Amino acid sequence: MELIAENRSFGGRQLRYSHRSEVLACDMIFAVYLPPQAEQGPVPVLYWLSGLTCTDENFVTKAGAQRYAAEHGIAIVAPDTSPRGEGVADDPDGAYDFGLGAGFYVNATEAPFAANYQMYDYVVSELPALVEAELPLDPKRQAISGHSMGGHGALTIALKNPGRFKSVSAFSPICSPLKCPWGEKALGGYLGDDKEAWREYDATELVARAEERLPMLVDQGEADDFLAEQLKPELLEKVGAAADYPMAIRMQPGYDHSYYFIASFIGEHIAFHAANL
Amino acid sequence: MELIAENRSFGGRQLRYSHRSEVLACDMIFAVYLPPQAEQGPVPVLYWLSGLTCTDENFVTKAGAQRYAAEHGIAIVAPDTSPRGEGVADDPDGAYDFGLGAGFYVNATEAPFAANYQMYDYVVSELPALVEAELPLDPKRQAISGHSMGGHGALTIALKNPGRFKSVSAFSPICSPLKCPWGEKALGGYLGDDKEAWREYDATELVARAEERLPMLVDQGEADDFLAEQLKPELLEKVGAAADYPMAIRMQPGYDHSYYFIASFIGEHIAFHAANL
Repeated sequence: MELIAENRSFGGRQLRYSHRSEVLACDMIFAVYLPPQAEQGPVPVLYWLSGLTCTDENFVTKAGAQRYAAEHGIAIVAPDTSPRGEGVADDPDGAYDFGLGAGFYVNATEAPFAANYQMYDYVVSELPALVEAELPLDPKRQAISGHSMGGHGALTIALKNPGRFKSVSAFSPICSPLKCPWGEKALGGYLGDDKEAWREYDATELVARAEERLPMLVDQGEADDFLAEQLKPELLEKVGAAADYPMAIRMQPGYDHSYYFIASFIGEHIAFHAANL
Repeated sequence: MELIAENRSFGGRQLRYSHRSEVLACDMIFAVYLPPQAEQGPVPVLYWLSGLTCTDENFVTKAGAQRYAAEHGIAIVAPDTSPRGEGVADDPDGAYDFGLGAGFYVNATEAPFAANYQMYDYVVSELPALVEAELPLDPKRQAISGHSMGGHGALTIALKNPGRFKSVSAFSPICSPLKCPWGEKALGGYLGDDKEAWREYDATELVARAEERLPMLVDQGEADDFLAEQLKPELLEKVGAAADYPMAIRMQPGYDHSYYFIASFIGEHIAFHAANL
């Protein structure tokens, strides 16, 4: 991996790397914040998964997370949201909600997307192995969070890998891609028409059958334009209650889907993860 | 003024307005953060002036200032950095350091720029009158800050208006536009060849002859690529020491010219202003 940018931030280092991804068969860029404590030895790590249209940069520049990461001594790894590059298939109409910038954190099985869109394996396996080998991160202390499509990614990845993460949180997650237009388009396009395959990437399905549990925090803005049609936290809340799953879903009056919302509560999310790490 | 965007942020409201500026003879956009305390009555206000190439948005999305503004109950007003629009003259070569995005907070006297580039009057008079009339701001409690070109703007505007501001701060300011390439180009282009006119917009000149003083805080990154050629805080420090001016100039090891630097210390700047407001 090659360091392509470095900025001092809250006494630590905001880093940006490029590398060749074998899993995605393209070059990728990701961001890492190393808190000051990383100078002394390995630190716990929070993976952050961004939403539709984002790259590795949105969270890094807009969330203001570095302050809290520095306070708690936690690294943050923020990957891109899809494979990238000239040879990578995109939505035929260039839509924002499929293809580039919209990998949905699944392993695609449908052509032509299967050739590159293996974001689940990239986030779960290839990227962690790379950063753990090269940076002072403690692989025994991992947490995961994300926003919108990335909230869906964080919840499903945590639920599908019991024991791997100490805690999971999400902002405005797509709680059931099986039951919303964004999810139907993406999972249909990447996984095909058989909805059995989709169930492996649906947080409400995974909560209902979870055998192991981990602490889960979800924040959702009540003024979010996507709340009713796309996000549907009530579905997650319902299966969570039925399964007696340890989750807190907090509705936040007045907040929308933007990074202003994330910035307002990322400190509480990082404190939540720090308490579990 | 017309509200064009609103986002809840740290319990307050991040607002974006457009209006017709008579002083600049064009339509302008500016940003206002109102902390939660503004629901109860007028709050003190910090004016933030951004640097070259910025609009009203850079500080608002990248500095993470809303958290501290909410804690201290301070509003933040962030104007654009130049007049805008199709009829507004720009650098003939489209350079980043003159014309659009580079108004330098002066009143231009040279054609064709004098027709629109009256950013000093806009920031000192027209914009405050507008926001004080329309928003719950306390005109008796004002402070001003900025970055780079905006740091120059903040320092010169505070120094030229004794009694108006309770405190002034700057990140990486252009300390003496008389003595750096950015300043020579901008002041020459806006004010003409007579350097006597430039002295009215040079912080080191204004500190040397200041009769009233106000608390001044400057942060400068030691890894800033523009430090030696353009910013020159040593010139400000020298006149400040000679004049026994109450200023703190802090050199910050490892920090560069970016918003990562601003984000790391904006909390201390807002606390500094809060203590004086």
